Amino acid sequence: MEKTILTGDRPTGKLHLGHYVGSLKGRVALQNSGEYKNIFIMIADAQALTDNADNPEKVRQNIIEVALDYLSVGLDPLKSTLFIQSQIPELCELAFYYMNLVTVSRLQRNPTVKSEIQMRDFEASIPVGFFTYPISQASDITAFKATTVPVGEDQLPMLEQTKEIVRKFNSVYGDTLIEPDILLPDNKACLRLPGIDGKAKMSKSLNNCIYLSDSAEEVRQKVMSMYTDPDHIQVSDPGKIEGNCVFIYLDAFCKPEHFEKYLPDYQNLDELKAHYKRGGLGDVKVKRFLIAILEEELTPIRERRKELEARIPEIYDILKEGSKRAREVAAKTLDEVKSAMKINYFDDIDFIREQSEKYAK
Amino acid sequence: MEKTILTGDRPTGKLHLGHYVGSLKGRVALQNSGEYKNIFIMIADAQALTDNADNPEKVRQNIIEVALDYLSVGLDPLKSTLFIQSQIPELCELAFYYMNLVTVSRLQRNPTVKSEIQMRDFEASIPVGFFTYPISQASDITAFKATTVPVGEDQLPMLEQTKEIVRKFNSVYGDTLIEPDILLPDNKACLRLPGIDGKAKMSKSLNNCIYLSDSAEEVRQKVMSMYTDPDHIQVSDPGKIEGNCVFIYLDAFCKPEHFEKYLPDYQNLDELKAHYKRGGLGDVKVKRFLIAILEEELTPIRERRKELEARIPEIYDILKEGSKRAREVAAKTLDEVKSAMKINYFDDIDFIREQSEKYAK
Repeated sequence: MEKTILTGDRPTGKLHLGHYVGSLKGRVALQNSGEYKNIFIMIADAQALTDNADNPEKVRQNIIEVALDYLSVGLDPLKSTLFIQSQIPELCELAFYYMNLVTVSRLQRNPTVKSEIQMRDFEASIPVGFFTYPISQASDITAFKATTVPVGEDQLPMLEQTKEIVRKFNSVYGDTLIEPDILLPDNKACLRLPGIDGKAKMSKSLNNCIYLSDSAEEVRQKVMSMYTDPDHIQVSDPGKIEGNCVFIYLDAFCKPEHFEKYLPDYQNLDELKAHYKRGGLGDVKVKRFLIAILEEELTPIRERRKELEARIPEIYDILKEGSKRAREVAAKTLDEVKSAMKINYFDDIDFIREQSEKYAK
Repeated sequence: MEKTILTGDRPTGKLHLGHYVGSLKGRVALQNSGEYKNIFIMIADAQALTDNADNPEKVRQNIIEVALDYLSVGLDPLKSTLFIQSQIPELCELAFYYMNLVTVSRLQRNPTVKSEIQMRDFEASIPVGFFTYPISQASDITAFKATTVPVGEDQLPMLEQTKEIVRKFNSVYGDTLIEPDILLPDNKACLRLPGIDGKAKMSKSLNNCIYLSDSAEEVRQKVMSMYTDPDHIQVSDPGKIEGNCVFIYLDAFCKPEHFEKYLPDYQNLDELKAHYKRGGLGDVKVKRFLIAILEEELTPIRERRKELEARIPEIYDILKEGSKRAREVAAKTLDEVKSAMKINYFDDIDFIREQSEKYAK
């Protein structure tokens, strides 16, 4: 079977190194692997509005940021369809009908929704749109007949909900929708980068992110201020690797060839770690090494971004064109869905004839 | 301000005398009053699917029944726009965005939803589409900028939900939507006809309805079997009026001129009731009177229906044309909604220029 990817991000802020390591980098690799017939990458503005209804401006302003980040890291509109969710009305219509196939109590049991509700302090005042967004996700995924959804393990319950909707729909109305598979990141170490303050997650509100759009100077300052081992005070002190951001980042980014280039005293990361652990290796030296490595990765991204920033209207054109293409695919699926549900009355000539005959009797 | 009506019915069965007295008759009068610029009458198939997802065929088959009933009672496609809800995708899109403006707990408090959930024995397994249908109703009403929604008192909480959504939308995104008013039936006696078995409500599942499409013989048999006063055994026995279906129906249908025509021994309904109460008036005589009156009302409806049944494809054309008209209006509202929410990015040239300038700095 031909394979199709659907993935995307909520445009609520610029993308950071956490996004890059956790999904963007892998996404570019998938794009360039040639294994996928279609790759749909969605800027999920409508989903972002489910818990930002009062602040649509934030969502609106960040669409272009996410698009710039996408294009800067190497997502290529010739290979991947980049589109904006709200520009595909068919997704709302699919969600509307899928809502009949899911019970309220099933939604309440969704662990991802549960934990996000807690995280957002919604409790009693959850917007209905937020509560029902697993159904909306099912419509995003199925609209494009995605076979493959590359997301983190925390999204497994969401994908399970999609599978359930697909099975229910197909059993009630006949085989129409494709059951998607999750594609988990292969490198467990890269699943999630901590914030530069050592907190588990990079988050805009915690102000602990390195953004893809940060300048070289900003990256330098952020790495230099990075959380390491608070007990590693003197260079001679033995240091801890666990929970030490600099080494976690090195795990994610460092390749053997980096040593030859930037730190020829060591053969590889294990040697560096061993020295740090036994003492005699200062944070600054390791941080400078990390900066060099990050810059190798970030400089071309930053340069592409700079070029792209001078061509904003063109980027909207890319998104417009992508949205048009995405819409064609979603419209075709919706047609199939409506015809499976037999609510395409006016197109169903046999049905109208049947009814005429019924009354003629 | 120009006045616009939005109303409709779920196509889950043929319409009966309860619908006729409770809404259809009044609707025809409103249509012909000349007071309303636009009248939108919706066959709510999508809403019917919210609790009939497993049985779409029932909904599908009943669309034409409802349309035949509408046209038979005098709804006129030249004066009223008759359309099918599922053919207006814009309604799903509006509902999608309104869902962000309502909390889950607000929906749970809706008394109409509460009682309907009880009535349908859903309890833990309420379909999400059913649970959220007050939001979908708000999108039906606001899409057509309805000023006036003629419904029964039991629908007050639904309309209150619509008003809340309108106020919330307008306060967050700027004045866009119209707050509708409920139009309650003016004759309290006519609010709800009981079933012919004396049960509070006509219901297909209770098999206690007189349908607008019943033959004269069916109507005769149903009236003759109608629940009256179980203690009124001999003609000479005194009879009860309260809870006596025949008299409740007479309250709804009988006019003074009917006596002259069909029962000249009495001047009016009060005299007839008085005689029944003091004894000496048999059920059969009163039932025959009711049959004559009902036939006066139903014969022309039945004849029109017969003619219409021979022209089924034409009726689908009427619905198709109406749906097209309705869609134009809903699309215009949706455009206004999206532009108020500022999610019409590609059309917003100023926005794109602003963003270009931001990065040029």
